[in-house]
Amino acid sequence: MKKLLVIGIGAGDPDYITLQAVKALNQVDVFFILDKGNSKDKLIHLRREICERYISGRDYRFVEAGSPERERGGEYDAAVKDLNLAKQQVFERLIGEELGEGECGAFLVWGDPSLYDSTLRILQAILRDGRLAFEYEVIPGISSIQALAARHKVPLNRIGRSIEITTGRRLAEGFPSNVDSVVVMLDAEDTYTRLDAPDLYIYWGAYVGTPDEILIAGKLKDVAADIARTRQQAREANGWIMDTYLLRRGDDEGV
Amino acid sequence: MKKLLVIGIGAGDPDYITLQAVKALNQVDVFFILDKGNSKDKLIHLRREICERYISGRDYRFVEAGSPERERGGEYDAAVKDLNLAKQQVFERLIGEELGEGECGAFLVWGDPSLYDSTLRILQAILRDGRLAFEYEVIPGISSIQALAARHKVPLNRIGRSIEITTGRRLAEGFPSNVDSVVVMLDAEDTYTRLDAPDLYIYWGAYVGTPDEILIAGKLKDVAADIARTRQQAREANGWIMDTYLLRRGDDEGV
Ligand SMILES: C[S@@+](CC[C@H](N)C(=O)[O-])C[C@H]1O[C@@H](n2cnc3c(N)ncnc32)[C@H](O)[C@@H]1O
Ligand SMILES: C[S@@+](CC[C@H](N)C(=O)[O-])C[C@H]1O[C@@H](n2cnc3c(N)ncnc32)[C@H](O)[C@@H]1O
Repeated sequence: MKKLLVIGIGAGDPDYITLQAVKALNQVDVFFILDKGNSKDKLIHLRREICERYISGRDYRFVEAGSPERERGGEYDAAVKDLNLAKQQVFERLIGEELGEGECGAFLVWGDPSLYDSTLRILQAILRDGRLAFEYEVIPGISSIQALAARHKVPLNRIGRSIEITTGRRLAEGFPSNVDSVVVMLDAEDTYTRLDAPDLYIYWGAYVGTPDEILIAGKLKDVAADIARTRQQAREANGWIMDTYLLRRGDDEGV
Repeated sequence: MKKLLVIGIGAGDPDYITLQAVKALNQVDVFFILDKGNSKDKLIHLRREICERYISGRDYRFVEAGSPERERGGEYDAAVKDLNLAKQQVFERLIGEELGEGECGAFLVWGDPSLYDSTLRILQAILRDGRLAFEYEVIPGISSIQALAARHKVPLNRIGRSIEITTGRRLAEGFPSNVDSVVVMLDAEDTYTRLDAPDLYIYWGAYVGTPDEILIAGKLKDVAADIARTRQQAREANGWIMDTYLLRRGDDEGV
């Protein structure tokens, strides 16, 4: 039987890696790396660095494949589904041709594999389609949400209250009415600047956990312009950006 | 200056601990352990075990204190606030009297410190009240939510969609209308059995990541009674239970 490991490596600091992940890394024969070309080089580099740093006394190899890209424009969910179908073909080829019987392959997932990541969905689709058979395990990792909260030293929830995790795209439809803590990921459009909510606090972070980390917190109306400017500058300086934020309703500085 | 570390130790498997947490443990002079007496002994034991396992070549001490308990009955949020005030007094005494100048103290938090845990709130309240001064850092940990998703090998979100994290108490008001993935924590009342939602899937887990782990998944209407029975038996056998679940609307088995 072929075996696959989906390993969460944490979302920033290489020390976010868990001991469970380190043990998992040390069982792997083949690491599959999907290369988006261009800007995300840094993240691929970090994956190789993690292997070098934490694997000892064991041979392993990397297999790289070009990663299909999402069509821009058009309907988002449909575009992601098309993208996942294309990725599924790449994954099937990698698992079918590049992994021997009895070998262990791995996908290193940024942050936690359960959060806005398609790896699990694609593996399940492959198994459902039935052309390949394999076992797989999932190793959780520190997500960007937890990294953000830890660096701002702030709880995600208010006492006994709910938290919503959402995307910039969905936040654009308005701040949810039934929760007072909202974590926003995947926001390419500075959606926080368009909220009409004078009492919101924001805890914003870019490149959290890395040497480039930037944190800004305060009343949304006081800091939104500062965040937008900082974000724009950082994206230009680095060629790319990853940022997340917590929005909180309430008058007690969110605590 | 006194220094405090709030260290997330993961929510189950001792291997959930991160390398950042291991490094943090190795800077600590005093571990503060809040003892609830009775049932939670196992969790205190695990904290000591983590220290023994991961700290090397360094002296450290444990300081235990009785942990105040929440008043049962009455309004929940108010009771938690009262509890936190009582805990604040305990924390102030511990930090004031049991930690020397220049020493490093630590609170080991189950799972992730940002999720339904009062440690950060209490430290902030102490600093705000101004009777004590200290620096502190927060180290994220693998939460029970990520452990649950990893063990069920399931993404938390549907493609591009939101996730709500909530409590049993709030779920009792009904399944939120604006999301299709809901993670429920702190549910002592089997609230999932009271939802009228024929198309929901549930991914339930108790003692996730520990040797006692139990996982059940399926269409809510098919497995709810089985979960309730299993939960009841496990709670009787162990004297206590910790369980969490993901509810998902949709016809595609949640993926
Ligand atoms: C495709 S999602 C993947 C999330 C990842 N699986 C996790 O657990 O964090 C990518 C989004 O995560 C967020 N993100 C990931 N790493 C981050 C970091 N170090 N700092 C800030 N945001 C980050 C950004 O919102 C980014 O748009
Ligand atoms: C006070 S909250 C603390 C949550 C913790 N900070 C975390 O990150 O998971 C306690 C709740 O977490 C959930 N929980 C914690 N550990 C768990 C585990 N190993 N398995 C299942 N549920 C768990 C249960 O819902 C429990 O009621």
